Amino acid sequence: MIKIGVDANGGDLGVEATVPGAMRAVQMFPDIEIVLYGDENKIKPLLTNPERISIVHTAVTMDMGEHNPAWAVKKQKDSSLCMAMYAAKNKEVDAVVTSGPTQCVIMAAHLIVRRLPMMERVALCPIIPNMDGKPRLILDCGANVELKPNHYGEFATFASVAAKEVLGIENPTVGLINIGSEPGKGRQIDQEAYEYLSNMKNINFKGNVEPDQLIDCPTDIVVGDGWSCNIAIKTLEGTAKGMGKMLKQEIKASTGGKIGYLFMKKNLKRFSMRMNSKEVGGAMIFGIGAPVVKAHGNSDAYAYSSAIRQLYNMVKSDLINKVVASLPKNDEEVKSGE
Amino acid sequence: MIKIGVDANGGDLGVEATVPGAMRAVQMFPDIEIVLYGDENKIKPLLTNPERISIVHTAVTMDMGEHNPAWAVKKQKDSSLCMAMYAAKNKEVDAVVTSGPTQCVIMAAHLIVRRLPMMERVALCPIIPNMDGKPRLILDCGANVELKPNHYGEFATFASVAAKEVLGIENPTVGLINIGSEPGKGRQIDQEAYEYLSNMKNINFKGNVEPDQLIDCPTDIVVGDGWSCNIAIKTLEGTAKGMGKMLKQEIKASTGGKIGYLFMKKNLKRFSMRMNSKEVGGAMIFGIGAPVVKAHGNSDAYAYSSAIRQLYNMVKSDLINKVVASLPKNDEEVKSGE
Repeated sequence: MIKIGVDANGGDLGVEATVPGAMRAVQMFPDIEIVLYGDENKIKPLLTNPERISIVHTAVTMDMGEHNPAWAVKKQKDSSLCMAMYAAKNKEVDAVVTSGPTQCVIMAAHLIVRRLPMMERVALCPIIPNMDGKPRLILDCGANVELKPNHYGEFATFASVAAKEVLGIENPTVGLINIGSEPGKGRQIDQEAYEYLSNMKNINFKGNVEPDQLIDCPTDIVVGDGWSCNIAIKTLEGTAKGMGKMLKQEIKASTGGKIGYLFMKKNLKRFSMRMNSKEVGGAMIFGIGAPVVKAHGNSDAYAYSSAIRQLYNMVKSDLINKVVASLPKNDEEVKSGE
Repeated sequence: MIKIGVDANGGDLGVEATVPGAMRAVQMFPDIEIVLYGDENKIKPLLTNPERISIVHTAVTMDMGEHNPAWAVKKQKDSSLCMAMYAAKNKEVDAVVTSGPTQCVIMAAHLIVRRLPMMERVALCPIIPNMDGKPRLILDCGANVELKPNHYGEFATFASVAAKEVLGIENPTVGLINIGSEPGKGRQIDQEAYEYLSNMKNINFKGNVEPDQLIDCPTDIVVGDGWSCNIAIKTLEGTAKGMGKMLKQEIKASTGGKIGYLFMKKNLKRFSMRMNSKEVGGAMIFGIGAPVVKAHGNSDAYAYSSAIRQLYNMVKSDLINKVVASLPKNDEEVKSGE
């Protein structure tokens, strides 16, 4: 049995999304068990099928407007977010999904679940939908605003193992986010990271990836610091959403548009699905002792079931242990590829 | 008469776009004169109406694949790009438009036209189309990968004057690109820049702007370093282009889509025009002694005429002198707002 902990109070929809999401996931996998950390009184009426789903009660929810994540995590040990994380730490569950505030999730992962000894940093790694329908991994998307070259190496290694084990990509390719394709581009750190990644033998590094390529990305994985990747992914999300909104406005603006819509309804549905992040699951937190997924704040039941499927695959493939085996122990090992 | 110099050999289409673009611009403004720097033998057959358009011959074109911009600018003084810049320096023309390689354009602006004494840095400032149809300025988009807080102040001042004089925006608002809305977000430099901009009395600073807001931007101007803004704008452009391509693919994928297209052809045309950068002109180079616009490499005649209109407005409004008058002479003046 694979046991997944769910922060049931978290997210914009709370139990309205987490409970049906859990029930859906249980139907998908016969060898899954779910523990809902959340408000029993709210969960019970929604839990129409409690098969392989248990509840650990807490009415406390981490505040989305929390400005001091470290303080919040230490202070609110009885929040649904922290309780799920403690369960992962104590091996009561194998993995955790939460839609809590991003910085609190990262902090709780760090302080409660704990960093792997060979990882100096923790990274947030969302899966971005791409034009060809294949997912891409981009990290770090927000856990560290500044990095050293070896951190890029850690992240590239972690993501390469995850891409293979979770997404089934053989020999996944790695790119470095940069404002130009040539090696000498970008800031000092980007040039150093390029050099470092080029010398690594345990990853398949393909050079720089420019931000305008992200939606049609030449590599399976893109690494960068939390500042740069965060700017890129937020711009991508905002632009995609804005474009969809503009398209709707223009279609509704005339009778011709409305009639045309009736003919191409399915086409437009497929169009909007191609960039739908609910399909691909949430952002993974890499570098800690258990698989943790941060789902979008606006996740619905479907998005939660996708995130649980993602965690199921991470646990089933024994991702963390495989990463530990792959992580180089020192710089020399990186270069020799042993 | 306002004299505009055009790097006629530059860009993907070269004289095929610059010559008809110049002829179109001359028809738009009775008080404009254009000098085409380029290959006379190629220009003459296309110049069907030479009214107020003269040619300064050079067959040399700056190579788009140039890896060492400083060297290229010094070595290729007889290129159409450099000749137009020298003409601006020597006041033979009032302003210059070019589609040459971005880093060479910035370098030529720097080395030939020269930086204004009170500007420590030069910035590349494209105009980005927005959902509400109103243009926004974003800078620096590539001239400097790292900046000090006072450089953000220079850029905000320059762009504020330009937004007022060229785009007609009264009391334009300024935002700082950041990964969160609160003042304490981002790297050390972003926090310092926030503080610096907050203390400036000659600009209308509104705080942080998140990258997902860029397409529907709450401020008229967004400032940031060349690394961050470049990532944002490239992601925005790539995503918008990719989304357009996906929409086309989905529409073409079925008969229903094709029929629907016939009904909403105009709607889709308006949709694609809303994010069309050809409409809004090119990227302005701020901080040098003359207005220079870097047009997109793929600019057509229409895009050139837009860029020339933009330069016309910059010269007509006496932008450079107004900026010089607005730029604070020292830090104290910034804070007192004198």
